Amino acid sequence: MLPVMRKLFAIGIGTGNPEHVTVQAINALNRADVVFLLDKGSEKAELARVRREICERYIERAYRVVELKDSVRDPGVASYEARVEAWHERRLLAYEEAFATELEEDSCGAILVWGDPSLYDSTLRILEGLRERGRLSLQYEVIPGISSPQVLAAEHKITLNRIGGAVHLTTGRRLAEGLPAGADDVLVMLDGECAFTELAAEGLDIYWGAYLGTEHQLLISGPLAERSSEIERVRNAARAEHGWIMDTYLLRKRTTR
Amino acid sequence: MLPVMRKLFAIGIGTGNPEHVTVQAINALNRADVVFLLDKGSEKAELARVRREICERYIERAYRVVELKDSVRDPGVASYEARVEAWHERRLLAYEEAFATELEEDSCGAILVWGDPSLYDSTLRILEGLRERGRLSLQYEVIPGISSPQVLAAEHKITLNRIGGAVHLTTGRRLAEGLPAGADDVLVMLDGECAFTELAAEGLDIYWGAYLGTEHQLLISGPLAERSSEIERVRNAARAEHGWIMDTYLLRKRTTR
Repeated sequence: MLPVMRKLFAIGIGTGNPEHVTVQAINALNRADVVFLLDKGSEKAELARVRREICERYIERAYRVVELKDSVRDPGVASYEARVEAWHERRLLAYEEAFATELEEDSCGAILVWGDPSLYDSTLRILEGLRERGRLSLQYEVIPGISSPQVLAAEHKITLNRIGGAVHLTTGRRLAEGLPAGADDVLVMLDGECAFTELAAEGLDIYWGAYLGTEHQLLISGPLAERSSEIERVRNAARAEHGWIMDTYLLRKRTTR
Repeated sequence: MLPVMRKLFAIGIGTGNPEHVTVQAINALNRADVVFLLDKGSEKAELARVRREICERYIERAYRVVELKDSVRDPGVASYEARVEAWHERRLLAYEEAFATELEEDSCGAILVWGDPSLYDSTLRILEGLRERGRLSLQYEVIPGISSPQVLAAEHKITLNRIGGAVHLTTGRRLAEGLPAGADDVLVMLDGECAFTELAAEGLDIYWGAYLGTEHQLLISGPLAERSSEIERVRNAARAEHGWIMDTYLLRKRTTR
Protein backbone atom coordinates (compact mmCIF):
# COMPACT_ATOMS: atom_id res chain seq x y z
CA MET A 1 0.00 0.00 0.00
CA LEU A 2 1.25 3.45 -0.87
CA PRO A 3 1.78 5.80 2.06
CA VAL A 4 -0.90 8.43 2.50
CA MET A 5 0.09 11.82 1.22
CA ARG A 6 -0.78 15.40 1.84
CA LYS A 7 -1.63 17.12 -1.42
CA LEU A 8 -1.03 20.80 -2.01
CA PHE A 9 -1.73 23.20 -4.88
CA ALA A 10 0.37 26.37 -5.30
CA ILE A 11 -2.08 28.52 -7.23
CA GLY A 12 -1.31 31.71 -9.16
CA ILE A 13 -4.28 34.06 -8.74
CA GLY A 14 -3.29 37.07 -10.86
CA THR A 15 -2.49 40.63 -9.86
CA GLY A 16 -5.58 41.87 -8.02
CA ASN A 17 -8.45 41.41 -10.46
CA PRO A 18 -10.47 38.38 -9.25
CA GLU A 19 -11.30 37.67 -12.92
CA HIS A 20 -7.64 36.86 -13.65
CA VAL A 21 -8.25 33.48 -12.03
CA THR A 22 -8.18 30.53 -14.46
CA VAL A 23 -10.65 27.63 -14.63
CA GLN A 24 -7.74 25.36 -13.66
CA ALA A 25 -7.20 27.46 -10.51
CA ILE A 26 -10.91 27.40 -9.66
CA ASN A 27 -10.96 23.61 -10.00
CA ALA A 28 -7.89 23.27 -7.78
CA LEU A 29 -9.39 25.64 -5.18
CA ASN A 30 -12.46 23.42 -5.11
CA ARG A 31 -10.37 20.39 -4.18
CA ALA A 32 -8.88 22.14 -1.14
CA ASP A 33 -9.89 21.30 2.41
CA VAL A 34 -7.61 24.04 3.73
CA VAL A 35 -6.60 27.35 2.11
CA PHE A 36 -3.29 28.70 3.40
CA LEU A 37 -2.88 32.46 3.22
CA LEU A 38 0.49 34.06 3.74
CA ASP A 39 -0.06 37.18 5.78
CA LYS A 40 2.68 39.43 4.47
CA GLY A 41 3.27 42.51 6.57
CA SER A 42 3.45 44.44 3.31
CA GLU A 43 0.11 43.16 2.15
CA LYS A 44 -2.52 45.77 2.61
CA ALA A 45 -6.16 45.33 3.54
CA GLU A 46 -7.17 45.86 -0.06
CA LEU A 47 -5.19 42.88 -1.34
CA ALA A 48 -6.43 40.75 1.54
CA ARG A 49 -9.97 41.69 0.49
CA VAL A 50 -9.34 40.54 -3.11
CA ARG A 51 -8.01 37.22 -1.84
CA ARG A 52 -11.05 36.68 0.36
CA GLU A 53 -13.28 37.62 -2.57
CA ILE A 54 -11.56 35.01 -4.76
CA CYS A 55 -12.17 32.29 -2.16
CA GLU A 56 -15.79 33.28 -1.53
CA ARG A 57 -16.65 33.74 -5.19
CA TYR A 58 -15.12 30.58 -6.59
CA ILE A 59 -15.01 27.91 -3.85
CA GLU A 60 -18.26 25.98 -3.70
CA ARG A 61 -17.45 23.61 -0.84
CA ALA A 62 -16.57 23.83 2.83
CA TYR A 63 -13.00 24.89 3.49
CA ARG A 64 -10.89 26.20 6.34
CA VAL A 65 -8.59 29.21 6.11
CA VAL A 66 -5.21 29.13 7.86
CA GLU A 67 -3.16 32.33 8.04
CA LEU A 68 0.59 31.91 7.86
CA LYS A 69 2.41 34.78 9.53
CA ASP A 70 5.31 35.97 7.42
CA SER A 71 8.64 36.48 9.13
CA VAL A 72 10.62 39.66 8.68
CA ARG A 73 13.87 40.02 6.76
CA ASP A 74 16.81 40.60 9.10
CA PRO A 75 18.45 43.90 8.15
CA GLY A 76 21.52 42.78 10.14
CA VAL A 77 22.47 40.31 7.38
CA ALA A 78 24.55 42.33 4.92
CA SER A 79 24.21 40.47 1.60
CA TYR A 80 20.84 40.73 -0.15
CA GLU A 81 20.91 37.07 -1.21
CA ALA A 82 21.86 35.86 2.29
CA ARG A 83 19.14 38.02 3.83
CA VAL A 84 16.50 36.60 1.49
CA GLU A 85 17.75 33.05 2.05
CA ALA A 86 17.63 33.37 5.84
CA TRP A 87 14.12 34.77 5.53
CA HIS A 88 13.10 31.86 3.29
CA GLU A 89 14.55 29.40 5.83
CA ARG A 90 12.35 30.84 8.57
CA ARG A 91 9.35 30.70 6.24
CA LEU A 92 10.15 27.09 5.41
CA LEU A 93 9.97 26.09 9.08
CA ALA A 94 6.72 27.99 9.50
CA TYR A 95 5.21 26.22 6.48
CA GLU A 96 6.39 22.81 7.69
CA GLU A 97 4.80 23.41 11.07
CA ALA A 98 1.54 24.66 9.52
CA PHE A 99 1.21 21.79 7.05
CA ALA A 100 2.02 19.21 9.74
CA THR A 101 -0.55 20.54 12.19
CA GLU A 102 -3.28 21.96 9.93
CA LEU A 103 -3.31 19.59 6.96
CA GLU A 104 -4.32 16.02 7.73
CA GLU A 105 -2.70 13.24 5.76
CA ASP A 106 -4.76 12.33 2.70
CA SER A 107 -6.30 15.80 2.63
CA CYS A 108 -5.69 18.64 0.24
CA GLY A 109 -4.49 22.22 0.70
CA ALA A 110 -4.09 25.30 -1.47
CA ILE A 111 -1.66 28.21 -1.23
CA LEU A 112 -2.69 31.36 -3.08
CA VAL A 113 0.15 33.17 -4.82
CA TRP A 114 -0.14 36.70 -6.27
CA GLY A 115 0.67 36.78 -9.97
CA ASP A 116 2.42 33.62 -11.17
CA PRO A 117 4.32 31.23 -8.88
CA SER A 118 7.18 31.07 -11.43
CA LEU A 119 8.08 34.77 -11.32
CA TYR A 120 9.69 36.54 -8.34
CA ASP A 121 7.83 34.50 -5.76
CA SER A 122 9.35 32.23 -3.10
CA THR A 123 6.56 29.66 -2.64
CA LEU A 124 8.02 27.04 -5.01
CA ARG A 125 11.48 27.41 -3.48
CA ILE A 126 9.97 26.76 -0.05
CA LEU A 127 7.99 23.71 -1.23
CA GLU A 128 11.12 22.29 -2.90
CA GLY A 129 12.99 22.92 0.37
CA LEU A 130 10.31 21.01 2.30
CA ARG A 131 10.56 18.12 -0.13
CA GLU A 132 14.35 18.03 0.26
CA ARG A 133 14.11 18.04 4.08
CA GLY A 134 11.82 15.06 3.76
CA ARG A 135 10.16 15.34 7.18
CA LEU A 136 6.68 15.75 5.74
CA SER A 137 4.92 13.59 3.16
CA LEU A 138 3.79 16.24 0.72
CA GLN A 139 2.92 16.11 -2.95
CA TYR A 140 2.35 19.38 -4.74
CA GLU A 141 1.22 20.79 -8.06
CA VAL A 142 1.67 24.26 -9.50
CA ILE A 143 -1.12 26.19 -11.23
CA PRO A 144 0.13 29.11 -13.35
CA GLY A 145 -1.51 32.53 -12.99
CA ILE A 146 -1.57 35.85 -14.84
CA SER A 147 1.53 37.87 -13.87
CA SER A 148 1.99 41.64 -13.66
CA PRO A 149 4.15 41.95 -16.84
CA GLN A 150 1.30 40.36 -18.79
CA VAL A 151 -1.27 42.76 -17.37
CA LEU A 152 1.09 45.69 -18.00
CA ALA A 153 1.36 44.66 -21.66
CA ALA A 154 -2.38 44.01 -22.03
CA GLU A 155 -3.37 47.36 -20.54
CA HIS A 156 -0.86 49.28 -22.68
CA LYS A 157 -1.92 47.10 -25.66
CA ILE A 158 1.68 46.27 -26.49
CA THR A 159 3.72 43.11 -26.95
CA LEU A 160 6.68 42.67 -24.59
CA ASN A 161 8.97 41.56 -27.42
CA ARG A 162 9.37 43.08 -30.85
CA ILE A 163 9.55 40.95 -34.01
CA GLY A 164 12.12 38.23 -33.40
CA GLY A 165 13.47 40.23 -30.44
CA ALA A 166 14.46 39.31 -26.88
CA VAL A 167 12.96 40.50 -23.59
CA HIS A 168 15.04 40.83 -20.45
CA LEU A 169 13.17 40.45 -17.13
CA THR A 170 15.04 41.96 -14.25
CA THR A 171 14.75 43.72 -10.89
CA GLY A 172 15.11 47.38 -9.90
CA ARG A 173 18.18 46.39 -7.89
CA ARG A 174 19.87 45.00 -11.01
CA LEU A 175 18.73 47.85 -13.23
CA ALA A 176 20.50 50.24 -10.84
CA GLU A 177 23.76 48.64 -12.10
CA GLY A 178 22.89 49.73 -15.65
CA LEU A 179 20.74 48.72 -18.59
CA PRO A 180 21.44 45.06 -19.47
CA ALA A 181 23.15 44.33 -22.79
CA GLY A 182 21.61 42.13 -25.46
CA ALA A 183 17.96 43.14 -25.13
CA ASP A 184 16.16 46.17 -26.53
CA ASP A 185 13.18 45.48 -24.26
CA VAL A 186 13.69 45.33 -20.52
CA LEU A 187 10.90 44.50 -18.08
CA VAL A 188 11.59 45.66 -14.53
CA MET A 189 9.94 44.28 -11.40
CA LEU A 190 10.48 44.91 -7.68
CA ASP A 191 11.76 48.45 -8.14
CA GLY A 192 11.01 50.39 -4.97
CA GLU A 193 13.66 53.01 -5.71
CA CYS A 194 12.65 54.28 -9.17
CA ALA A 195 15.91 52.98 -10.72
CA PHE A 196 14.69 54.27 -14.11
CA THR A 197 15.37 57.86 -12.98
CA GLU A 198 19.11 57.09 -12.90
CA LEU A 199 19.36 55.84 -16.49
CA ALA A 200 20.52 57.83 -19.52
CA ALA A 201 17.00 58.36 -20.83
CA GLU A 202 17.92 59.24 -24.41
CA GLY A 203 16.38 56.82 -26.92
CA LEU A 204 14.28 54.97 -24.33
CA ASP A 205 10.51 54.73 -24.02
CA ILE A 206 8.82 53.60 -20.81
CA TYR A 207 5.51 51.79 -20.28
CA TRP A 208 4.71 51.97 -16.58
CA GLY A 209 1.82 50.53 -14.58
CA ALA A 210 0.84 50.35 -10.90
CA TYR A 211 -1.95 48.50 -9.05
CA LEU A 212 -2.39 46.54 -12.30
CA GLY A 213 -5.74 44.83 -12.59
CA THR A 214 -7.26 46.71 -9.63
CA GLU A 215 -9.64 49.65 -9.64
CA HIS A 216 -6.73 51.97 -8.73
CA GLN A 217 -4.71 51.00 -11.80
CA LEU A 218 -2.35 53.70 -13.09
CA LEU A 219 -0.74 53.72 -16.54
CA ILE A 220 1.83 56.14 -17.95
CA SER A 221 3.84 55.74 -21.15
CA GLY A 222 6.07 57.81 -23.41
CA PRO A 223 9.69 58.87 -23.86
CA LEU A 224 11.54 58.17 -20.60
CA ALA A 225 13.13 61.64 -20.68
CA GLU A 226 9.66 63.24 -20.63
CA ARG A 227 7.90 60.80 -18.28
CA SER A 228 10.52 59.93 -15.70
CA SER A 229 9.79 62.65 -13.14
CA GLU A 230 6.04 62.46 -13.80
CA ILE A 231 6.05 58.75 -12.96
CA GLU A 232 8.10 59.35 -9.82
CA ARG A 233 5.67 62.07 -8.72
CA VAL A 234 2.53 60.02 -9.48
CA ARG A 235 4.07 56.97 -7.79
CA ASN A 236 4.91 58.86 -4.59
CA ALA A 237 1.46 60.45 -4.43
CA ALA A 238 -0.30 57.10 -4.99
CA ARG A 239 1.78 55.35 -2.36
CA ALA A 240 1.00 58.10 0.11
CA GLU A 241 -2.71 57.85 -0.69
CA HIS A 242 -3.05 54.04 -0.57
CA GLY A 243 -0.30 53.23 1.93
CA TRP A 244 1.29 50.75 -0.50
CA ILE A 245 2.21 50.41 -4.16
CA MET A 246 3.08 47.58 -6.55
CA ASP A 247 4.33 48.62 -9.96
CA THR A 248 6.27 47.32 -12.95
CA TYR A 249 7.47 48.78 -16.23
CA LEU A 250 8.92 48.05 -19.65
CA LEU A 251 11.87 50.05 -20.98
CA ARG A 252 12.01 49.96 -24.78
CA LYS A 253 14.94 51.16 -26.88
CA ARG A 254 13.67 53.21 -29.78
CA THR A 255 14.82 51.80 -33.11
CA THR A 256 14.99 53.70 -36.39
CA ARG A 257 13.38 50.94 -38.46
CA MET B 1 -23.35 62.05 -31.01
CA LEU B 2 -20.29 59.79 -30.87
CA PRO B 3 -19.68 57.61 -33.93
CA VAL B 4 -20.64 53.96 -33.51
CA MET B 5 -17.71 51.68 -32.91
CA ARG B 6 -16.81 48.11 -33.54
CA LYS B 7 -15.47 46.52 -30.36
CA LEU B 8 -12.94 43.72 -30.35
CA PHE B 9 -11.29 41.60 -27.67
CA ALA B 10 -7.88 39.99 -28.29
CA ILE B 11 -8.06 37.08 -25.87
CA GLY B 12 -5.19 34.93 -24.64
CA ILE B 13 -6.49 31.36 -24.24
CA GLY B 14 -3.46 29.50 -22.88
CA THR B 15 -1.37 26.76 -24.43
CA GLY B 16 -3.80 23.95 -25.22
CA ASN B 17 -5.47 23.14 -21.91
CA PRO B 18 -9.01 24.59 -22.05
CA GLU B 19 -8.77 25.14 -18.27
CA HIS B 20 -6.04 27.75 -18.76
CA VAL B 21 -8.79 30.18 -19.74
CA THR B 22 -9.39 32.97 -17.20
CA VAL B 23 -12.74 34.22 -15.92
CA GLN B 24 -11.93 37.55 -17.61
CA ALA B 25 -11.51 35.72 -20.93
CA ILE B 26 -14.78 33.82 -20.46
CA ASN B 27 -16.64 37.07 -19.76
CA ALA B 28 -15.12 38.70 -22.85
CA LEU B 29 -16.01 35.66 -24.99
CA ASN B 30 -19.58 36.00 -23.79
CA ARG B 31 -19.80 39.56 -25.09
CA ALA B 32 -18.76 38.53 -28.61
CA ASP B 33 -21.21 38.39 -31.50
CA VAL B 34 -18.47 37.07 -33.77
CA VAL B 35 -15.45 34.90 -32.94
CA PHE B 36 -12.58 35.31 -35.40
CA LEU B 37 -10.31 32.31 -35.73
CA LEU B 38 -7.01 32.61 -37.54
CA ASP B 39 -6.57 29.44 -39.56
CA LYS B 40 -2.80 29.02 -39.48
CA GLY B 41 -1.50 26.47 -41.96
CA SER B 42 0.75 25.24 -39.14
CA GLU B 43 -2.14 24.76 -36.78
CA LYS B 44 -3.07 21.15 -36.58
CA ALA B 45 -6.49 19.60 -36.16
CA GLU B 46 -5.79 18.99 -32.51
CA LEU B 47 -5.28 22.66 -31.70
CA ALA B 48 -8.34 23.58 -33.75
CA ARG B 49 -10.30 21.08 -31.65
CA VAL B 50 -9.14 22.73 -28.40
CA ARG B 51 -10.19 26.13 -29.72
CA ARG B 52 -13.63 24.83 -30.67
CA GLU B 53 -13.91 23.18 -27.27
CA ILE B 54 -13.13 26.50 -25.55
CA CYS B 55 -15.89 28.27 -27.51
CA GLU B 56 -18.46 25.53 -26.96
CA ARG B 57 -17.65 25.05 -23.30
CA TYR B 58 -17.57 28.67 -22.20
CA ILE B 59 -19.75 30.74 -24.55
CA GLU B 60 -23.36 30.72 -23.38
CA ARG B 61 -24.91 32.88 -26.09
CA ALA B 62 -25.37 32.79 -29.86
CA TYR B 63 -22.21 33.64 -31.80
CA ARG B 64 -20.87 33.32 -35.32
CA VAL B 65 -17.44 31.92 -36.17
CA VAL B 66 -15.41 33.53 -38.96
CA GLU B 67 -12.24 31.80 -40.12
CA LEU B 68 -9.42 34.10 -41.20
CA LYS B 69 -7.11 32.39 -43.68
CA ASP B 70 -3.50 33.03 -42.85
CA SER B 71 -1.20 34.16 -45.64
CA VAL B 72 2.13 32.46 -46.22
CA ARG B 73 5.55 33.99 -45.55
CA ASP B 74 7.35 34.77 -48.81
CA PRO B 75 10.65 32.86 -48.82
CA GLY B 76 11.82 35.21 -51.64
CA VAL B 77 12.27 38.04 -49.11
CA ALA B 78 15.78 37.63 -47.76
CA SER B 79 15.73 39.32 -44.32
CA TYR B 80 13.80 37.58 -41.56
CA GLU B 81 12.38 40.84 -40.22
CA ALA B 82 11.33 42.03 -43.71
CA ARG B 83 9.73 38.65 -44.42
CA VAL B 84 7.74 38.75 -41.19
CA GLU B 85 6.74 42.38 -41.79
CA ALA B 86 5.50 41.68 -45.34
CA TRP B 87 3.53 38.74 -43.97
CA HIS B 88 2.02 40.91 -41.23
CA GLU B 89 1.05 43.51 -43.87
CA ARG B 90 -0.91 40.88 -45.82
CA ARG B 91 -2.54 39.72 -42.61
CA LEU B 92 -3.48 43.30 -41.75
CA LEU B 93 -5.37 43.71 -45.02
CA ALA B 94 -7.12 40.39 -44.48
CA TYR B 95 -8.18 41.43 -40.96
CA GLU B 96 -9.38 44.83 -42.17
CA GLU B 97 -11.51 43.18 -44.84
CA ALA B 98 -12.91 40.61 -42.40
CA PHE B 99 -13.77 43.15 -39.70
CA ALA B 100 -15.38 45.51 -42.25
CA THR B 101 -17.57 42.82 -43.78
CA GLU B 102 -18.22 40.43 -40.88
CA LEU B 103 -18.43 42.72 -37.87
CA GLU B 104 -21.29 45.20 -37.88
CA GLU B 105 -20.73 48.59 -36.35
CA ASP B 106 -21.77 48.64 -32.70
CA SER B 107 -21.23 44.90 -32.41
CA CYS B 108 -18.47 43.01 -30.65
CA GLY B 109 -15.87 40.49 -31.84
CA ALA B 110 -13.26 38.26 -30.23
CA ILE B 111 -9.95 36.99 -31.58
CA LEU B 112 -8.54 33.96 -29.79
CA VAL B 113 -4.77 34.01 -29.32
CA TRP B 114 -2.72 30.98 -28.21
CA GLY B 115 -0.77 31.67 -25.04
CA ASP B 116 -0.58 35.38 -24.22
CA PRO B 117 -1.06 38.18 -26.79
CA SER B 118 1.99 40.00 -25.35
CA LEU B 119 4.54 37.28 -26.13
CA TYR B 120 5.69 36.30 -29.62
CA ASP B 121 2.30 36.86 -31.21
CA SER B 122 1.45 39.31 -33.99
CA THR B 123 -2.21 40.05 -33.23
CA LEU B 124 -1.58 43.26 -31.26
CA ARG B 125 0.81 44.54 -33.91
CA ILE B 126 -1.89 44.02 -36.53
CA LEU B 127 -4.59 45.74 -34.46
CA GLU B 128 -2.26 48.69 -33.85
CA GLY B 129 -1.59 48.80 -37.60
CA LEU B 130 -5.34 48.88 -38.31
CA ARG B 131 -5.78 51.73 -35.85
CA GLU B 132 -2.96 53.68 -37.51
CA ARG B 133 -4.44 53.18 -41.00
CA GLY B 134 -7.67 54.60 -39.62
CA ARG B 135 -9.99 53.18 -42.27
CA LEU B 136 -12.05 51.20 -39.77
CA SER B 137 -13.65 52.41 -36.57
CA LEU B 138 -12.37 49.81 -34.13
CA GLN B 139 -11.87 49.84 -30.39
CA TYR B 140 -10.05 46.91 -28.83
CA GLU B 141 -9.09 45.46 -25.47
CA VAL B 142 -6.47 42.86 -24.62
CA ILE B 143 -7.11 39.97 -22.22
CA PRO B 144 -3.92 38.29 -20.95
CA GLY B 145 -3.61 34.50 -21.05
CA ILE B 146 -1.35 31.81 -19.63
CA SER B 147 1.79 31.55 -21.79
CA SER B 148 3.98 28.53 -22.51
CA PRO B 149 6.94 29.68 -20.31
CA GLN B 150 4.55 29.78 -17.36
CA VAL B 151 3.24 26.28 -18.04
CA LEU B 152 6.81 25.03 -18.54
CA ALA B 153 7.77 26.40 -15.13
CA ALA B 154 4.61 25.10 -13.43
CA GLU B 155 5.01 21.58 -14.82
CA HIS B 156 8.70 21.42 -13.86
CA LYS B 157 7.78 23.03 -10.51
CA ILE B 158 10.50 25.66 -10.88
CA THR B 159 10.66 29.44 -10.84
CA LEU B 160 11.97 31.08 -14.01
CA ASN B 161 14.18 33.48 -12.05
CA ARG B 162 16.46 32.73 -9.14
CA ILE B 163 16.61 34.93 -6.02
CA GLY B 164 17.05 38.51 -7.21
CA GLY B 165 18.12 37.20 -10.63
CA ALA B 166 17.21 38.13 -14.20
CA VAL B 167 15.51 36.04 -16.89
CA HIS B 168 16.24 36.50 -20.57
CA LEU B 169 13.44 35.55 -22.98
CA THR B 170 14.69 34.94 -26.47
CA THR B 171 14.20 32.95 -29.68
CA GLY B 172 15.99 29.91 -31.09
CA ARG B 173 17.23 32.12 -33.92
CA ARG B 174 18.93 34.47 -31.45
CA LEU B 175 20.24 31.66 -29.26
CA ALA B 176 22.03 30.29 -32.33
CA GLU B 177 24.23 33.44 -32.11
CA GLY B 178 25.32 32.40 -28.60
CA LEU B 179 24.11 32.47 -25.02
CA PRO B 180 23.11 36.03 -24.07
CA ALA B 181 25.22 37.84 -21.49
CA GLY B 182 23.81 39.21 -18.26
CA ALA B 183 21.32 36.45 -17.41
CA ASP B 184 21.91 33.09 -15.79
CA ASP B 185 18.43 31.94 -16.81
CA VAL B 186 17.47 31.97 -20.48
CA LEU B 187 14.01 31.04 -21.71
CA VAL B 188 13.93 30.04 -25.37
CA MET B 189 10.84 30.09 -27.61
CA LEU B 190 10.33 29.48 -31.34
CA ASP B 191 13.28 27.13 -31.69
CA GLY B 192 12.58 24.79 -34.58
CA GLU B 193 16.25 23.94 -35.07
CA CYS B 194 17.29 22.69 -31.58
CA ALA B 195 19.74 25.58 -31.14
CA PHE B 196 20.59 24.20 -27.67
CA THR B 197 22.56 21.36 -29.31
CA GLU B 198 25.11 23.91 -30.60
CA LEU B 199 25.90 25.45 -27.20
CA ALA B 200 28.85 24.65 -24.96
CA ALA B 201 26.78 22.52 -22.58
CA GLU B 202 29.19 22.60 -19.63
CA GLY B 203 27.61 24.13 -16.53
CA LEU B 204 24.12 24.39 -18.04
CA ASP B 205 20.91 22.65 -17.03
CA ILE B 206 17.91 22.45 -19.34
CA TYR B 207 14.18 22.28 -18.53
CA TRP B 208 12.38 21.36 -21.73
CA GLY B 209 8.68 20.91 -22.47
CA ALA B 210 6.56 20.22 -25.54
CA TYR B 211 2.77 20.21 -26.14
CA LEU B 212 2.55 21.98 -22.77
CA GLY B 213 -0.88 21.76 -21.18
CA THR B 214 -2.13 19.11 -23.60
CA GLU B 215 -2.53 15.38 -23.07
CA HIS B 216 0.64 14.79 -25.14
CA GLN B 217 2.79 16.94 -22.86
CA LEU B 218 6.47 15.95 -22.72
CA LEU B 219 8.94 17.08 -20.07
CA ILE B 220 12.69 16.44 -19.86
CA SER B 221 15.17 18.11 -17.52
CA GLY B 222 18.74 17.70 -16.38
CA PRO B 223 22.32 18.67 -17.29
CA LEU B 224 22.31 19.89 -20.91
CA ALA B 225 25.34 17.74 -21.72
CA GLU B 226 23.39 14.62 -20.73
CA ARG B 227 19.97 15.56 -22.08
CA SER B 228 20.70 17.40 -25.32
CA SER B 229 20.65 14.45 -27.72
CA GLU B 230 17.80 12.77 -25.80
CA ILE B 231 15.63 15.87 -26.23
CA GLU B 232 16.48 16.11 -29.92
CA ARG B 233 15.56 12.44 -30.39
CA VAL B 234 12.30 12.66 -28.41
CA ARG B 235 11.40 15.90 -30.21
CA ASN B 236 11.91 14.41 -33.68
CA ALA B 237 9.94 11.28 -32.82
CA ALA B 238 7.05 13.30 -31.34
CA ARG B 239 6.90 15.62 -34.34
CA ALA B 240 6.83 12.63 -36.67
CA GLU B 241 4.05 11.04 -34.61
CA HIS B 242 1.80 14.11 -34.23
CA GLY B 243 2.70 15.96 -37.43
CA TRP B 244 3.52 19.13 -35.46
CA ILE B 245 5.35 20.24 -32.32
CA MET B 246 5.42 23.32 -30.11
CA ASP B 247 8.11 23.40 -27.45
CA THR B 248 10.01 25.77 -25.19
CA TYR B 249 12.82 25.45 -22.69
CA LEU B 250 14.77 27.14 -19.92
CA LEU B 251 18.58 27.07 -19.88
CA ARG B 252 19.94 27.57 -16.37
CA LYS B 253 23.57 28.25 -15.52
CA ARG B 254 24.59 26.13 -12.57
CA THR B 255 25.92 28.23 -9.71
CA THR B 256 28.14 27.05 -6.86
CA ARG B 257 26.15 28.80 -4.13
